[in-house]
Amino acid sequence: MYFTLNSNKLKSLIICGMLSPINQDFTFISFFMNPQDHQSPSSQPPELRKVLILRPPPVFTVHEQYFSNRFHILKAYDSPLPTHDFLHAHAQDVKVVLCSGAGPITADVIRDLPALQLVVSAATGVNHIDMAECRRRGITVTNAGDVFSEDVADAAVGLLTDVMRRISSGDRLVRGGRWPTSGEYPLGSKLGGKRVGIVGLGNIGFRVATRLEAMGCIVSYTSRQKKHCPFTFYPDILQLAVDSYALVLCCALTNETRHMIDNKVMMGLGEKGVIVNVARGALIDEAELVKCLVEGEIGGVGLDVFENEPNVPKELFELDNVVLLPHKTAFTKESFYDAAQVLIGNLEAFFTNKPLLTPVANEF
Amino acid sequence: MYFTLNSNKLKSLIICGMLSPINQDFTFISFFMNPQDHQSPSSQPPELRKVLILRPPPVFTVHEQYFSNRFHILKAYDSPLPTHDFLHAHAQDVKVVLCSGAGPITADVIRDLPALQLVVSAATGVNHIDMAECRRRGITVTNAGDVFSEDVADAAVGLLTDVMRRISSGDRLVRGGRWPTSGEYPLGSKLGGKRVGIVGLGNIGFRVATRLEAMGCIVSYTSRQKKHCPFTFYPDILQLAVDSYALVLCCALTNETRHMIDNKVMMGLGEKGVIVNVARGALIDEAELVKCLVEGEIGGVGLDVFENEPNVPKELFELDNVVLLPHKTAFTKESFYDAAQVLIGNLEAFFTNKPLLTPVANEF
Repeated sequence: MYFTLNSNKLKSLIICGMLSPINQDFTFISFFMNPQDHQSPSSQPPELRKVLILRPPPVFTVHEQYFSNRFHILKAYDSPLPTHDFLHAHAQDVKVVLCSGAGPITADVIRDLPALQLVVSAATGVNHIDMAECRRRGITVTNAGDVFSEDVADAAVGLLTDVMRRISSGDRLVRGGRWPTSGEYPLGSKLGGKRVGIVGLGNIGFRVATRLEAMGCIVSYTSRQKKHCPFTFYPDILQLAVDSYALVLCCALTNETRHMIDNKVMMGLGEKGVIVNVARGALIDEAELVKCLVEGEIGGVGLDVFENEPNVPKELFELDNVVLLPHKTAFTKESFYDAAQVLIGNLEAFFTNKPLLTPVANEF
Repeated sequence: MYFTLNSNKLKSLIICGMLSPINQDFTFISFFMNPQDHQSPSSQPPELRKVLILRPPPVFTVHEQYFSNRFHILKAYDSPLPTHDFLHAHAQDVKVVLCSGAGPITADVIRDLPALQLVVSAATGVNHIDMAECRRRGITVTNAGDVFSEDVADAAVGLLTDVMRRISSGDRLVRGGRWPTSGEYPLGSKLGGKRVGIVGLGNIGFRVATRLEAMGCIVSYTSRQKKHCPFTFYPDILQLAVDSYALVLCCALTNETRHMIDNKVMMGLGEKGVIVNVARGALIDEAELVKCLVEGEIGGVGLDVFENEPNVPKELFELDNVVLLPHKTAFTKESFYDAAQVLIGNLEAFFTNKPLLTPVANEF
């Protein structure tokens, strides 16, 4: 079972108070279990509630105080010891790791932590965690639920609009002082009436679909299985590409989806076709993508993610039909606030033997 | 009466065929009145169907051939004569002018053309035409109807998304090679749940509203009068600003709306507030806007239009919370195709004594 939360459910499930509203836009103030106990609501003293972090997830960095008030944070990244030695030093009493893509939880890390019971991912995706090794060891994994879904969907639509309507390139033209001398500006493409294929109709993909429908796009999708929804299902990514003006990638990165957007799919999409990727870089064969863009075999791309972050192929920097983001489509004040609640909620649940909020299915 | 067309109505009203589909995205092929007659469907020879142009509208430039095949185009901009002399030379037989913002139809121009009966604007707005003088002389004005509305609405939402989610500034960061060294990237703001005020709930404003609703925004509006719609009406722009996170300007520029976004409104919107302007630059007191942005009195802006185009205040070029477009939110292949049909449809209607497609109300 894949457990997800929308933000309303989240607000009612996690009745927390350790986070105060961080800007005027928040309209709810909530309390964690017991409003009197803002520091540590469990009977365990914080020093026994150890949470190990290899590299700090951005949500942790932004809300560190709230984590530190409640848990004993073991910071591998702040230690003079090499990671392996740091893990060895805490091997016997670390039951929980908090992580994100910047600090992968490999089989080696898991082996170094024999007492490990829970891996809390600060991201929605768990491709940075060796899930097979977790399964073998009986270690539970939680993710961020769907707290990022709306923001990622908004940014995906923003990227598609930007590429099709040349927003970033127009901004470059004006900032470069070239408007008075630029003559005619190339025409963009209308969104209304365009066929857009969503790759992965999960929490994010579905929200992208509803936003694009409001803009008059005709939405289809491919997914592991057909969903109960008004959009046309394609079992085959290649046929979806052939029939679509644009593809928006919203699926998880797995062995099956790695490089699913290959040369064939790009050629199927065609020279006007647009690809937006807000999922994981390795869904696309990046070397092939760069080649297709440079040679004009596809129309444009909007990318938030790359195969070898933070490195981005330099050939892309010169292209005007390309919009590049630094893997930040989930980065809003509001989603970080919600994410901190989910992460702390999962940690609290673990230390108080309550059901986890967002466990990730980990079955063959 | 303000006559408007949506694209479906347009497709059924203008059964034209002189334009061929200009790219694979067009799915309809249509015929003008009589499919046999692709050159000049009226009984008048083209040399008698004179259309004067001071400065070529972009839609004319892109589709010039279709205009030239049907009408005798008098190009003031191509003549060695000064404009005044050129107008004098054609004074007695020019009944029609085709225009856009680049070549304003002033009282002087109108005075130089005593036989003028029709001004065909290639834009939706008619603020570049001296409407009072046209009224006095009994000259009819047509505009582009609402062929641009969807594209302008899409771009307005794109600009708001860009400013709130920092898309252009993220693209600049990646292209500048600064991602690996930039550390934490500032968090953006979620669109969902934000109060957005639409200024002018016409064809464009209404489409902006429905798109923003799909993204979870709470939409209000101000307009000359309350409309029958699900959004909250504010009679007062200042109160709308005070109650809104963002304002999206979609109204016509008139003596009443000039500088309606003044210091008071900006201060009402507040230091997190965002302004998007896809209408006309002079709706905003631009000098005041620059001052508020530089001093951090408002949160950010997305501007397609400026007071003194193509000149843009240079202070804006340095700001990361600003997205600047070269007055091109209407510029798509599809809208230009539709616009050419409306313009030619109006010209054909005039020369064949048929009802104009998109006459503009011109009453006190």
